[in-house]
This record gives sequence, structure tokens and C-alpha cells, in this order.
Amino acid sequence: MSYFDESRSAETVNSRMGPGTDARLRQVMESLVRHLHAFAVDVSLTQEEWEYGIGFLTRTGQMCSDERQEFILLSDVLGFSMLVDAINNRRPKGATENTVFGPFHVADAPVRQMGETISLDGKGESCLFQGEVRDLDGNPVEGACVDVWSDNADGFYDVQQPGIQPKWNNRGRFYTGPDGRYAFVGIKPVAYPIPDDGPVGQMLGQLGRHPYRPAHMHYLVTAPGFQKLVTHTFVGDDTYLTSDAVFGVKSSLVAPYERLEGAETLWRSDYDFVLVPA
Amino acid sequence: MSYFDESRSAETVNSRMGPGTDARLRQVMESLVRHLHAFAVDVSLTQEEWEYGIGFLTRTGQMCSDERQEFILLSDVLGFSMLVDAINNRRPKGATENTVFGPFHVADAPVRQMGETISLDGKGESCLFQGEVRDLDGNPVEGACVDVWSDNADGFYDVQQPGIQPKWNNRGRFYTGPDGRYAFVGIKPVAYPIPDDGPVGQMLGQLGRHPYRPAHMHYLVTAPGFQKLVTHTFVGDDTYLTSDAVFGVKSSLVAPYERLEGAETLWRSDYDFVLVPA
Repeated sequence: MSYFDESRSAETVNSRMGPGTDARLRQVMESLVRHLHAFAVDVSLTQEEWEYGIGFLTRTGQMCSDERQEFILLSDVLGFSMLVDAINNRRPKGATENTVFGPFHVADAPVRQMGETISLDGKGESCLFQGEVRDLDGNPVEGACVDVWSDNADGFYDVQQPGIQPKWNNRGRFYTGPDGRYAFVGIKPVAYPIPDDGPVGQMLGQLGRHPYRPAHMHYLVTAPGFQKLVTHTFVGDDTYLTSDAVFGVKSSLVAPYERLEGAETLWRSDYDFVLVPA
Repeated sequence: MSYFDESRSAETVNSRMGPGTDARLRQVMESLVRHLHAFAVDVSLTQEEWEYGIGFLTRTGQMCSDERQEFILLSDVLGFSMLVDAINNRRPKGATENTVFGPFHVADAPVRQMGETISLDGKGESCLFQGEVRDLDGNPVEGACVDVWSDNADGFYDVQQPGIQPKWNNRGRFYTGPDGRYAFVGIKPVAYPIPDDGPVGQMLGQLGRHPYRPAHMHYLVTAPGFQKLVTHTFVGDDTYLTSDAVFGVKSSLVAPYERLEGAETLWRSDYDFVLVPA
């Protein structure tokens, strides 16, 4: 008999799965049901709170479109995206840490010459980004693709402002030579809010949280024989560094930004990437 | 400093809530974040599984409309709705147990004379439903409103088939007199599937579960000075009795159905309701 009983509700639900259920699906669902039920019991969730939750999830789903993924945003602001990223990218000491990919990467950005600029709109404070891509033993990695992207000085990615920003503004790919070094000119990125005009933004407001991400440069570093590295470097003096709305900051990813006197380029940020074998 | 760290991810997220956050909201969110993070860690959720989950939630939200609430369906098939119902309706021994309200109640159904029929389409096997509404001490409750509804012989509620079924088919309200007794004629209800053409139905398929609810009659019993009772009685010989897709069955809610020989009405089902003081 498997009638409902409050004291063994999760077990009853989980016992219903058929014998042919995929083993991994079974494992994931069993844990999900157990934790969901434990949550409801922990807080003695009221009927009204349940209704509010149903309404919240519905609004979140209905906010989603080709241009907007409100459920990813929800996962992000609950630290869930970062946790999944961490679980799937545990690396040995010395390796560069991962952080969330974010929604603004565009594949096949222009391949540029080492040292070239990616800033095409002439806005913002110019900054030289440079460093080395190496392996865990300190050897330079040749042929690494350093794919970079950032917002512009107004806090928007080019894809958020088609027709306003030049296409591929603040994006580019750079291939390392035998010395493993990379260099490009961009702008010192600026903090920006995640889209907060939907249910997730409303939730952040109710929780007394702001929607800002601290300024960061995105990197996707790939090289044959190595694990893909998805990360950002953060501007160390940013107001929001310790309160990133999506919890993307790790202390090892805070990069130095050095003010250059008398140079055409205003800033310099040095950061090395250490890759892990595939 | 509250940079992200896998080992204390939930604490970091929860520490961000502002000091002005509503105390109950804080309690609910802290528990939700803790359980969500524990789930991801428990199963080492992969990036692909996370993406699948995001897509599933998005499809679920986008299936919702004025006529369809796919998130309630999801909550139902995960036993979450029943658990919340149970948490909020813990009652002393002897009191009639609650079960889920379901989406098919319609307010202000016609008030009928005691013993009248609610079956307006002439389909199905007729059944006399009768019993007493009483308090925990065994005293009859006068003036109780017994609001009842069921599907028709084809397994559909009238609101699912406007223009096909007569309006108010298999619905009615009955007010008890001084003896606390109720009686009405309906049909012996039949099992039916919950809507399974969306993401939730697809999930049930993957879990090797069927979408059927065992046959049941819905009751909403209200009386001044007593707690509202939302329940069903179930037909005891139903194939799906121990595998209700939404876990609504409790053993105390399985009612007898007695075949009547030589009577115009084919069945009789006796069931008493015991109400708890408000």
C-alpha cells in the first residue's frame, strides 16, 4: 500500500518510480523530492506561501523569451549556478578557477592580432590586458584561444544594444604563440545590474539585495589537451566586489588594475591563466 | 568578505539578505537555499542536468495559461501539494482528513434539496451518497454546507467540456438540517488522467508513472464555528487507488460502495464527515 502519509511523504513519492526508470534520473529525482519535502516540513510552508510560490514560478516562466532567461537569472541569484559550476569544475591547487559563463558570450568573435583593441565604440577607460597561459608545471601553452568579452562603459554588452554599439564591440579571440602570452586592449569594465524588471528583480528587492555585478572581464580559454576554462577577472576596487548579485567572485579571480601614467592606455591588468589537462 | 566558496555556498547566499528582510521570508528563503544547494551537492548535479532543469522549468511556465496550471500539476505529481495540505491540516484523531482541493471546484454551485441529483447528463452509474456531518463529540452539525463535485462517466468535469456537458453537471451544494445528515444522487465517479500532454506528463512517462487519479467524489464541507474540510472520498475497488498520480488517497478516505439490487439507483456510498472546531 502506498497511500499518502505526511511522515513518509518523500518515500511514498519516490517509491512510485517504475523499475525501468533511468538510474541517474532516479537518483536525481529521489534527492530532489527528499529535499523539496524536507524544505516544506522545515518551514511549515503555508497554503498561501505555496500559492505565492506557484505564482512566482509561473511569472518566471512567462518572463522567458529568446532574449531573456529568467530561470537562469533565478538560479544565478540563489547561488545555484555558481554551485553547479563549482561542483563540475573542481581543480587542483594552482589552476585558475572557473566562474559562471553568463548569458552574453557570442561564439565566433573576430580573431584579432595580439595586442589589438576590442573596444570599437571609443568609450570608457582603455586598459591593456596581458598575461600568460600555462600548464600546471609552468610551461607556456601554445595555440590557446583566449576568447574575451566585456560590457562597454555604459554597462551594456553589444548584444544588449544592437544598432547602438558596433557589432563585436568589446569582444575578440586571441591565439597564443610559443611563449603562451596574450595581450589585448579593452576598457576597464564597469559594474552593471542584471535585468531586474521581472520576478527575480522583485525578489531581490524583497530580500534587500541589489542587482549589481561587480566589473569584470570574461574569459573562455581553450587549448588542445586541456580542460576548458570559463572565468572572469574582477576589478579589485569595485563597490560590488563582495556582493555580486550572482556570487561569481572568487578571491583568486580579483585582478590588479594598475594606473599607467603618461601612456595612451590608461590602465594595465596582468593575469595569468593556468590550465588543467583534459 | 563573502566571496563564493563551494563548501559554504548556501551560507554565503543567505548572508546577503538585507537586515530589513521580512522575518518569515528570511526563514523560508534560508531553508529553500539550503535544501536546493544540498540537493545539487548530493547528486553532483552536472551542467547538462542543470540546463535540462532550466529548460524543464521554462517549458512548465510557458505551458501555463488561464485554463492550465502546469506548476500546480508539477507540485501535485511530486507529492508536494499533498504535503503542504497535510502540514496545514493536522487534525485530532477522529476528525475527517483533508486532501488536495484540485483545480476543478467552481464556487456558488446550485443549492439543491436534500436527496436531489447532481447528475444532469444522464450518463454513468447512479449512486446515492449519504451520511452525517458531526463534531468531534458526535453531535450532528446543523447548517453545514456540503459542496460536492465529480467528473462525469467520461472522466471529465463540466468545466473541461463547456457546451458538451450541461452547466453544473455533477455539482451541487446541500445544507444539513438539525440531524446533520446529507444525501444526494450523483454517479459512481470514474478514474481519469491528469493533463499529460505537457512537460509534467512527459516527466511522468520518464519516471514510469501513469497519469491517472483513482475515482473520487470531491467534498468541501463548511459550517460556522468549524474548520473548513476539503476532501474526497475514493471508490475502494479502483485500479489506481494505490497509485494516485497526485498522492491524494489516504486510507481513511476510501469509502464503501454498495451495489443496490432492484433499486433505481445502482449504488450507495455512506460516508460521515467529522469537523474540527475553528
